[in-house]
Amino acid sequence: MIFTDTRDSGFAKSFDELLQRGKMDIAEVSLIVTSIINEIKLDKNEALKKHIEKFDNWTPKSDEELKISTESMSKAYDNLDVKLRDSLHLAYDRIKAYHEKQKPKSWFDTESNGTILGQKVTPVDSAGLYIPGGKAAYPSSLLMNVIPAQVAGVQNIIVTTPTPNNEPNELLLAACHLCGVSEVYKVGGASAIAAMAYGTQSIPKVDVITGPGNIFVATAKKMVFGDVNIDMIAGPSEIGILADDSANPSHLAVDMLSQAEHDEMASSILITPSQALADAVKIEIEVWLKKLSREEIARKSIEERGAIIVTVDMDEAIELMNEIAPEHLEVATDNAFEYLAYIKHAGAIFLGHNTPEAIGDYVAGPNHTLPTGGTAKFFSPLGVENFMKKTSIISFSKNAINKIGEECALIASTEGLTAHEQSVRVRLNK
Amino acid sequence: MIFTDTRDSGFAKSFDELLQRGKMDIAEVSLIVTSIINEIKLDKNEALKKHIEKFDNWTPKSDEELKISTESMSKAYDNLDVKLRDSLHLAYDRIKAYHEKQKPKSWFDTESNGTILGQKVTPVDSAGLYIPGGKAAYPSSLLMNVIPAQVAGVQNIIVTTPTPNNEPNELLLAACHLCGVSEVYKVGGASAIAAMAYGTQSIPKVDVITGPGNIFVATAKKMVFGDVNIDMIAGPSEIGILADDSANPSHLAVDMLSQAEHDEMASSILITPSQALADAVKIEIEVWLKKLSREEIARKSIEERGAIIVTVDMDEAIELMNEIAPEHLEVATDNAFEYLAYIKHAGAIFLGHNTPEAIGDYVAGPNHTLPTGGTAKFFSPLGVENFMKKTSIISFSKNAINKIGEECALIASTEGLTAHEQSVRVRLNK
Repeated sequence: MIFTDTRDSGFAKSFDELLQRGKMDIAEVSLIVTSIINEIKLDKNEALKKHIEKFDNWTPKSDEELKISTESMSKAYDNLDVKLRDSLHLAYDRIKAYHEKQKPKSWFDTESNGTILGQKVTPVDSAGLYIPGGKAAYPSSLLMNVIPAQVAGVQNIIVTTPTPNNEPNELLLAACHLCGVSEVYKVGGASAIAAMAYGTQSIPKVDVITGPGNIFVATAKKMVFGDVNIDMIAGPSEIGILADDSANPSHLAVDMLSQAEHDEMASSILITPSQALADAVKIEIEVWLKKLSREEIARKSIEERGAIIVTVDMDEAIELMNEIAPEHLEVATDNAFEYLAYIKHAGAIFLGHNTPEAIGDYVAGPNHTLPTGGTAKFFSPLGVENFMKKTSIISFSKNAINKIGEECALIASTEGLTAHEQSVRVRLNK
Repeated sequence: MIFTDTRDSGFAKSFDELLQRGKMDIAEVSLIVTSIINEIKLDKNEALKKHIEKFDNWTPKSDEELKISTESMSKAYDNLDVKLRDSLHLAYDRIKAYHEKQKPKSWFDTESNGTILGQKVTPVDSAGLYIPGGKAAYPSSLLMNVIPAQVAGVQNIIVTTPTPNNEPNELLLAACHLCGVSEVYKVGGASAIAAMAYGTQSIPKVDVITGPGNIFVATAKKMVFGDVNIDMIAGPSEIGILADDSANPSHLAVDMLSQAEHDEMASSILITPSQALADAVKIEIEVWLKKLSREEIARKSIEERGAIIVTVDMDEAIELMNEIAPEHLEVATDNAFEYLAYIKHAGAIFLGHNTPEAIGDYVAGPNHTLPTGGTAKFFSPLGVENFMKKTSIISFSKNAINKIGEECALIASTEGLTAHEQSVRVRLNK
């Protein structure tokens, strides 16, 4: 773990390490992913089956076997513990309510000469959601990807997820039933991304692909980008915490570990002007580590990619955090809202002592799919807009084109485009 | 030119050709672009100078020479013909007014238990705009890229444009002055994209790169995507026209040619239920072609990539056009607005007989940077949002976390994430 003070001589070097945290070297997997994509384009279902045999350790005997039956989904839902089922419904309802507020509207405006200008916002026709499989098949990931697509109004929503040993994750199946998703395919990794981007006999080509995944999935998404749209290229999870003496060190320690337990590559970074808090959190991390079911992963993550930084004051802490642009940012102070205006870059901001990051992973409402590795400087959380697109609307009356057509024709002619110029001129003074 | 009827036996094959129109084979240029990007990453300014020598035929003698002076820009502006200057100002003002209407707002909502949820929308820190150089250096491209970045509130806006033989396009310089852009670099192609994505001694690294370009530029943008955000991967320009007997065939012919004159690879597609109109437009195209300054380009484009399709009725015409999802779509009928609800996919829709596509290229207001090659099914016009990003806001009170914390902890524990679970539990009932 990096444990440093901004006044330390080695600080700049340590901090630069944190800024580089998200760098993925996709060069080494690019060749493999390219060949997987090409195989799917060429051999479609046959290639899918070959890849399943290789990566998921089972052999689909027919095309039909690639699809999960809706019966198995409703059965998994019926088998859910009642409390868990209610909790998932609560999550579904809250996530849906939040995303409905974020849905963009078509709009138009008129000018007194008859001009109408506007923007039509419509859903894409189809979306493909990738959900990692096996032990990492989280029902919450399904909710967070399906709901914005549903709120957008996407008609055709499909899901792909790998099923190692042909054993689908029961919780995920139950969540599919809960969300009303019926088309789920047992395909994973780069093959699944390629199948959704280009289509096979069983899997329809979609317009937008979203969802988390490992470096092969991330690389495949980047490669098919342009032939379809994608949400973002996401790396390991991460949390940044801004805190002062008002924070509870035990709470912050477990908050940091809630990222660390995801993945050995996850980053947990506390920045505070309080040396006392920094020391206390360091001790509490050790206390908490021993209580975790995923202690080994969390320990490796926190040791290799954790950081506690002591600053001169809160201003400096915020400045550093803006450079880090973390996926999740907790502001653990009494007056958290006062800092909101100064925080420029983060995927999601969790304000105050009662808002642990985990509440946003499941039930708060906002999406838990967030930009990582500093990409919050230019990427946004997954949302309804990822499943919609815009069309400009332009309507000119005779009056309107007569009013500004000359100016338009002049610019066109200056750019040397005669047909542009004439297409306006022929309509003037008629 | 494809001249066909949906009832012809060869129709399906012809139509499929149109659907494939936008396919760019970037595989062949990928290797070249990868090595250009790697050279810029490694040698920075030195690599830039080497590429300028090779591609633009001049030799920068110092780092300072990579930058265009603001004096040369204000001089170019002063030298503008007064009418042209006024026309460009009209364009600037109208484009700005439209984009201001499209600017998204931060929002929040509260719940009676003290929960606050919302979304903060903020500009990216920096944007890099690529503008093609030489003869294709259109001032309108500059306006259409700069204005949304300015409306978004981006603090640092830079422009790169190649200057073959070290001769900047005077119109472009004038437009830079008009827009208030002061940082313009004489760098083009994939080198410029790499320089803006990773930074050199002279060119700052940016967060978002937008702007048109050839296949090398498009490929470079795709490759740096993820390290920065980009607008879209655009191909050759294209127009689709839906029309009936109320349309003027001469007008439609010149509208089709206004795309064809851009580029031999441009596509111009008329779909109409009227055989008479189809025949008349075909004749008018020949009449107009001879009058164009860029006749040769337009002729090659219309012959190789133009199409006129006669349909059974307007419903069928709209259905086909939705599959094509054209960049520009003119609806040349008396009752154009009646069709608006049925048009699902297009970059921009130009409604009625008085709205030639060219009006949208320059002065109407909406952006002329639009998704091509069928990508209007999932990409949107360039806009203010390309230069902004969102941050989710979550704030829970003690009451709020007590109310739904249990449900959250239960889902976390079901997913096997102890630290997630505990980070909520430690805050309950306090």
